[in-house]
Amino acid sequence: MALYIGIDIGGTAIKGVVIDENGKLYGEDSVVTVRGEEIVNGIAALCNRLSRQNGGRIAGVGIGCAGVIDSANGKVVLASNLGLADFSMVGLLKEKINLPVRITNDANAAALGEAKFGAGKNYKNSILVTLGTGVGGGIVIDGRLFEGNKSAGAEIGHMVIERGGAQCSCGRQGCFEAYSSATALKRRTKWAMEEDTGSAMWGKYTSDKVTGKTAFEYADCDTSARKVVDWYIDYLACGLVNLANAFRPEVIMLGGGVSKEGERLTAPLQEILDREVFAAQYARVLVKTAALGAAAGAYGAAALWL
Amino acid sequence: MALYIGIDIGGTAIKGVVIDENGKLYGEDSVVTVRGEEIVNGIAALCNRLSRQNGGRIAGVGIGCAGVIDSANGKVVLASNLGLADFSMVGLLKEKINLPVRITNDANAAALGEAKFGAGKNYKNSILVTLGTGVGGGIVIDGRLFEGNKSAGAEIGHMVIERGGAQCSCGRQGCFEAYSSATALKRRTKWAMEEDTGSAMWGKYTSDKVTGKTAFEYADCDTSARKVVDWYIDYLACGLVNLANAFRPEVIMLGGGVSKEGERLTAPLQEILDREVFAAQYARVLVKTAALGAAAGAYGAAALWL
Repeated sequence: MALYIGIDIGGTAIKGVVIDENGKLYGEDSVVTVRGEEIVNGIAALCNRLSRQNGGRIAGVGIGCAGVIDSANGKVVLASNLGLADFSMVGLLKEKINLPVRITNDANAAALGEAKFGAGKNYKNSILVTLGTGVGGGIVIDGRLFEGNKSAGAEIGHMVIERGGAQCSCGRQGCFEAYSSATALKRRTKWAMEEDTGSAMWGKYTSDKVTGKTAFEYADCDTSARKVVDWYIDYLACGLVNLANAFRPEVIMLGGGVSKEGERLTAPLQEILDREVFAAQYARVLVKTAALGAAAGAYGAAALWL
Repeated sequence: MALYIGIDIGGTAIKGVVIDENGKLYGEDSVVTVRGEEIVNGIAALCNRLSRQNGGRIAGVGIGCAGVIDSANGKVVLASNLGLADFSMVGLLKEKINLPVRITNDANAAALGEAKFGAGKNYKNSILVTLGTGVGGGIVIDGRLFEGNKSAGAEIGHMVIERGGAQCSCGRQGCFEAYSSATALKRRTKWAMEEDTGSAMWGKYTSDKVTGKTAFEYADCDTSARKVVDWYIDYLACGLVNLANAFRPEVIMLGGGVSKEGERLTAPLQEILDREVFAAQYARVLVKTAALGAAAGAYGAAALWL
């Protein structure tokens, strides 16, 4: 049986997995992330090691990489954090490892991983929405990754849901990301604490220790915390309903730190989606938490060959 | 050469065209729209007539129909205006005309028509946004219609761009449609006139004669009219940038009545898209007016076979 290597390039480590077409794990390993064009040497070494360990049965290598990626041409257009610009990752790696290579954006890779082997495995159409420092994600249509022209689509965090609203890092105001990221949740929680000096949230946390979990932890016993959670869910639901109306997947999967709230998040969201999605009774959109965690990216990169 | 019949079901007339794979017109005809399940008899008569006129060279029939359509199963799930619900249009029509039949939503058909033979013919990825009574449209990805699960996607008018904003017919508040339809433009124009009794717009129009064109006509000589146009373009741009970030087509085509403003609309929109679309320099999204007008639906319905 053919095996596939999936590579997930992170800020500190590059992780590699070897899987078969069913997502069964045959091996994993990692190397330290080096910034700049030398990154390709680390990836090559990792691939060669994983290939040797699996008796040369590797049929293809997939890479998930942060930044703007031109997957059709195998290029990293811009990945500032990795110090890469207009870099022919696929071409250079192919030369060094003598295996076919594909590449996509890391968020897309995670979406494909969840779609094939995680919370979306029973559905043909799914969207992964990652609630972390920002709001990222990816879209799978009929079992295949949807990337848009020059792989520049699926920027789901940068959809304005409140025109003239909160400033977003992309330059626009009121983006989904500016309300639904863990960063936004944390900011809102701090603000709520400062507004309400009697909040139970002050009990355990100083303003500096506030996390995306704080409001959820206190939501059952503190009105200010409850309001933050309701605020967060309302905006998140707004963005998810927009995505449901535009792409109409069977399932939206939530990943990233905030998704660990599980049903406290998915139950109210499902209720809102069932009410607000256009013709929801006819073509329901489910909300689930993602299943693979940090492994989704590497699995999905390998799945570029499936 | 094989020919294809495209049927566009409108509120008063059902139009049919016969085209080849290049969009060359071989014939056209129409019948009056009858509400209810008898509609299929009119369509069958129209198809048989068009088929006879073209020596039986018809390889397939495509239908564009308003409402919620289940294209995979050939059903009209709900088309209130036509008095149809859970209606097996494709199955019944096939029996009557002995030709293969496909169906899609009318907005999708128009998008496919523009994509194949109109303003999108040089591009693989396009979106048609129709600025009429509502905001409709459709999405073409890699030359094929994108419909989402159960063909319920591509509801681009029902994307909230201003949370808690203007009431939309779908039940949500702040939808793209509630700002960018001709209806919304007309409402805003009336409001601007009532606010400014000195507006030049009063010169020719009574409040009752205001149309989607009024503000554009007076924009060069009247501040209130100019403000309405700027307001309209700002919201429209907001929705278009959202669509560009999510789907990243090569071109967004504007159809419907308001699109007749041409460059007065597309020039400022292009400027905003070039500035606000995520990584626009890398993967630019063009804005053009649609080319086929009311014929797009019938051409696109035929193109379901291409």
